[in-house]
Amino acid sequence: MKFKRTERIGAIVKILSDNPNKVFTLSHFTEKFNAAKSTVSEDILVVKNVFEKLDLGKVITIAGAAGGVKYIPKISAKDNEVFLNEICKKIDDSSRILSGGFLYMIDLIYSPEISSKIGKIFASYIDYSEADYIVTIETKGIPMALMTAKAMNLPLLIIRKDTKASEGSSLNITYVSGSKNIVQTMTLPRKALKEGSKVILIDDFMRGGGTLKGMQDLMNEFNAEVIGKGVLISTTTPNEKLVKDYVSLIDLTEIDELNGTIKVEPNKNFITD
Amino acid sequence: MKFKRTERIGAIVKILSDNPNKVFTLSHFTEKFNAAKSTVSEDILVVKNVFEKLDLGKVITIAGAAGGVKYIPKISAKDNEVFLNEICKKIDDSSRILSGGFLYMIDLIYSPEISSKIGKIFASYIDYSEADYIVTIETKGIPMALMTAKAMNLPLLIIRKDTKASEGSSLNITYVSGSKNIVQTMTLPRKALKEGSKVILIDDFMRGGGTLKGMQDLMNEFNAEVIGKGVLISTTTPNEKLVKDYVSLIDLTEIDELNGTIKVEPNKNFITD
Repeated sequence: MKFKRTERIGAIVKILSDNPNKVFTLSHFTEKFNAAKSTVSEDILVVKNVFEKLDLGKVITIAGAAGGVKYIPKISAKDNEVFLNEICKKIDDSSRILSGGFLYMIDLIYSPEISSKIGKIFASYIDYSEADYIVTIETKGIPMALMTAKAMNLPLLIIRKDTKASEGSSLNITYVSGSKNIVQTMTLPRKALKEGSKVILIDDFMRGGGTLKGMQDLMNEFNAEVIGKGVLISTTTPNEKLVKDYVSLIDLTEIDELNGTIKVEPNKNFITD
Repeated sequence: MKFKRTERIGAIVKILSDNPNKVFTLSHFTEKFNAAKSTVSEDILVVKNVFEKLDLGKVITIAGAAGGVKYIPKISAKDNEVFLNEICKKIDDSSRILSGGFLYMIDLIYSPEISSKIGKIFASYIDYSEADYIVTIETKGIPMALMTAKAMNLPLLIIRKDTKASEGSSLNITYVSGSKNIVQTMTLPRKALKEGSKVILIDDFMRGGGTLKGMQDLMNEFNAEVIGKGVLISTTTPNEKLVKDYVSLIDLTEIDELNGTIKVEPNKNFITD
């Protein structure tokens, strides 16, 4: 089958865009399109242009034997701001306040559209060049963690809260979750993580940082190094968290069950320490 | 900013491909590219061609006031077969057999690449034209359920195994999970699901069908109708399951802890009843 230039370009965009951070060799495309290397190289230049002009991320060429082309998702600062403001506007709704001062959020954080945007934002602000895994804890952070793993082209690990026969022998730790103030367990199968791995932790919500601290402790049990942490929302109090150097996208300043008021805003700095 | 035809086509492919089943109006593109309607219409024809020629799914035009263009992901029968054979080959590895005859699968089912392919396969074989939600139960089915929701452009709901203060008042049922033979609880927040909704259930594994049956019962409590069910793997014994009319992608015929043998193969029919 022969392809026109416009068709080849459309196809290259589709393939790269569906597989962020995956390297495709030139021959992958020359075979698929039955076209010369020089032709495909020109196509890729056009594709690079499309992504740059529309601020959709970067397409980069890697030289050498293991070389090829890959797409790196990046959300522009402006799109990011628009998106986070929209989310904050949706959160700021007194009917979301639950008994105990909790926030009903699952309609937002389980949404494939929202979680995939969050994943791309984490991929834009957390350095994952050396990361081996994305690690999250069940349950609410899983959608955004999976989409982060997808954007970074990394495998995902999910820490469970109790040991599962269907996952084999495991390493367990106990931790105190700040929001509930009770001792809980975290567990991950022994074979899930290679020794000496570098990981990025993702979770949906942080108050005191107890859960993230527990995840970090569990990673230490695996001799894994935590090289990045991302949360969607963190509360501004307590100011002192149990973990440092995290990326938090949204600040929750106040949630008042009595008056039905919520104060949330995009975190302008992202990186706090 | 002005765009060349090749650039417009690349951009349209990127936008449609990132947002399966979402309708974009022609004006969305004419404004973005500062181009005439006739120009964009021609671009879209080329885009349609790309998807068809490469068997990447369908791009359809919707007429009328609410009209526009949308991308429907579809995996071709051939790609599907290749993919499922690869997965079966990976599963067929005696080191995956855990004590109790369980299968270690999380490296596969948590993978963003694999789960997004599974999502596209479910979207190719389950009719979701009338569906309102994708529903799964924590934890292992979540990645594939999220990717199914993404491919179908539907919201995702995750049934929890115990009531969470952070999710508000809930409806609960008890059920017997076949593989464990113990009574367990399923719970979903009351406000998560609108009365009279139509839902598709997704899970990773089915033996007797107890979990899917429980999910179905819980949906009945919400006066929701189950219009489709998909599982990645089902065991061939017991032959009689507690649920009917499900799509299962892979058959697990045998798992022998003593001899270390596993027998798995792609389910050639998909639809069983």
